[in-house]
Amino acid sequence: MLETRSEHACFGGRMGYYSHASTQTGTKMNFAVYAPPQAQHAAVPALYFLAGLTCNDETFMTKAGAQRVAAELGLMLVACDTSPRGLNDPGDSESWDFGVGASFYVDATQQPWSRHYRMASYVNTELPALIEQHFPAQPGRRGIFGHSMGGHGALVTALRNPERWHSVSAFAPLCNPVNAPWGQKAFATYLGADAQAWQAWDASLLMSVRAYPRTILVDQGEGDKFLARELQPDALEAAARTSGQPLKLRRHAGYDHSYYFVQTFIADHLAHHAAQLSARQ
Amino acid sequence: MLETRSEHACFGGRMGYYSHASTQTGTKMNFAVYAPPQAQHAAVPALYFLAGLTCNDETFMTKAGAQRVAAELGLMLVACDTSPRGLNDPGDSESWDFGVGASFYVDATQQPWSRHYRMASYVNTELPALIEQHFPAQPGRRGIFGHSMGGHGALVTALRNPERWHSVSAFAPLCNPVNAPWGQKAFATYLGADAQAWQAWDASLLMSVRAYPRTILVDQGEGDKFLARELQPDALEAAARTSGQPLKLRRHAGYDHSYYFVQTFIADHLAHHAAQLSARQ
Repeated sequence: MLETRSEHACFGGRMGYYSHASTQTGTKMNFAVYAPPQAQHAAVPALYFLAGLTCNDETFMTKAGAQRVAAELGLMLVACDTSPRGLNDPGDSESWDFGVGASFYVDATQQPWSRHYRMASYVNTELPALIEQHFPAQPGRRGIFGHSMGGHGALVTALRNPERWHSVSAFAPLCNPVNAPWGQKAFATYLGADAQAWQAWDASLLMSVRAYPRTILVDQGEGDKFLARELQPDALEAAARTSGQPLKLRRHAGYDHSYYFVQTFIADHLAHHAAQLSARQ
Repeated sequence: MLETRSEHACFGGRMGYYSHASTQTGTKMNFAVYAPPQAQHAAVPALYFLAGLTCNDETFMTKAGAQRVAAELGLMLVACDTSPRGLNDPGDSESWDFGVGASFYVDATQQPWSRHYRMASYVNTELPALIEQHFPAQPGRRGIFGHSMGGHGALVTALRNPERWHSVSAFAPLCNPVNAPWGQKAFATYLGADAQAWQAWDASLLMSVRAYPRTILVDQGEGDKFLARELQPDALEAAARTSGQPLKLRRHAGYDHSYYFVQTFIADHLAHHAAQLSARQ
């Protein structure tokens, strides 16, 4: 069951905002789909975007300037919300870096979060199944990317499920959350005090033991105030060296953590995904 | 005195949000400037955008995807707020189509609005003087455009002051506000009950008696829910025929009133302005 919230013509395609009742989260979840003009005639590759802390399903579609490029390349864009909403679990709205707007895209194991905070499974299986049922998206050509907390989510989703995700990239991702304050706070609460359990959700730890089979693109601004403390791209580079992961990590002087940074390099990311997705049979 | 609220690297240039104490409005006014990379070396033409009802100085810069094109063409972008704020005049915040966020870019003549609602003079003289003092903008190459209420503001500003504005375009403008509910409500309150006084602020009436000396570009979505009642592009076309105004008015099937429409055609508008501004000596 799909509820259409709004639809708008955009670059010859259709920008739509929808909601559905999610099995994984047990809540109504909002999501957004940009269907490029090519999707009027045939199914197209779909590229999923995961947003960062405090964002929602509209942030990327409003601020990243991606539709123009997606229309040129024939890519569908899908953006989901950053957490379940409306639950009023104790503590879910007390801070901007935990709970509502801050799922970290894991499957929580600790009460009360384990009931609804199942965003990893939502992103990995439920949402793509929904998209491929209701929109002209090719199941065999599925890319994922994201920003900040969502960059972490994209890297982890692809590294844990490389058979399901055929391309991956990230803007300013949390590369090593087990060693960073945001990640430690969230993982301790969603996954429990035993840091052993956190390792399965850390991009650098995952990458160090198994390389993703294609090149990963990561852009990072050097003027990003979260760089040293929260993002730690050095850890991702070290992991890539350990496992032999092909990693194209670009550092950009002067750029900060905002969507002004994201929009500057969005065309490069869509081209990266389009090339890898079109190389598939 | 300029206060910098934030600055961000963007497409090799600088996206900045600022504020200053305005003489015209008697309030602190926010505005935004995108300085393209070319402005690091020499003054560039500046293109002013006026936003629509309920918007502010951030709307266009966040949603229109214009910075990419401005960086390519070497255009500075300037966006101001849609009204003075923080006055708490009686009735200034009771409706979304009057008062705060809804100045209609006129110089009000009626109490209490005449004291602060002087957005026409603010846009026409005070803001350009401020920009040309503090940013590398060429005084002789100044364009103006806008959306909806701001499209009306851009057309009226250029038609009233063609010597100051060297190019003009609009997205879904209010073309004939003296004959439309939004315009009648605002003009009656800002300008008084005598509709004679409204004529100097109506794009179609102005255009019908004196053509602007260069081609004006207007884009209008045919799926725009405000089209027939508020926007009335037919009146602008009739006025252009009367005065011989070169008018390129394009109607786009399926497009609505949103920034998804604006972003789809933003590159055409910036190219229109760049061509007219670069043709000047």
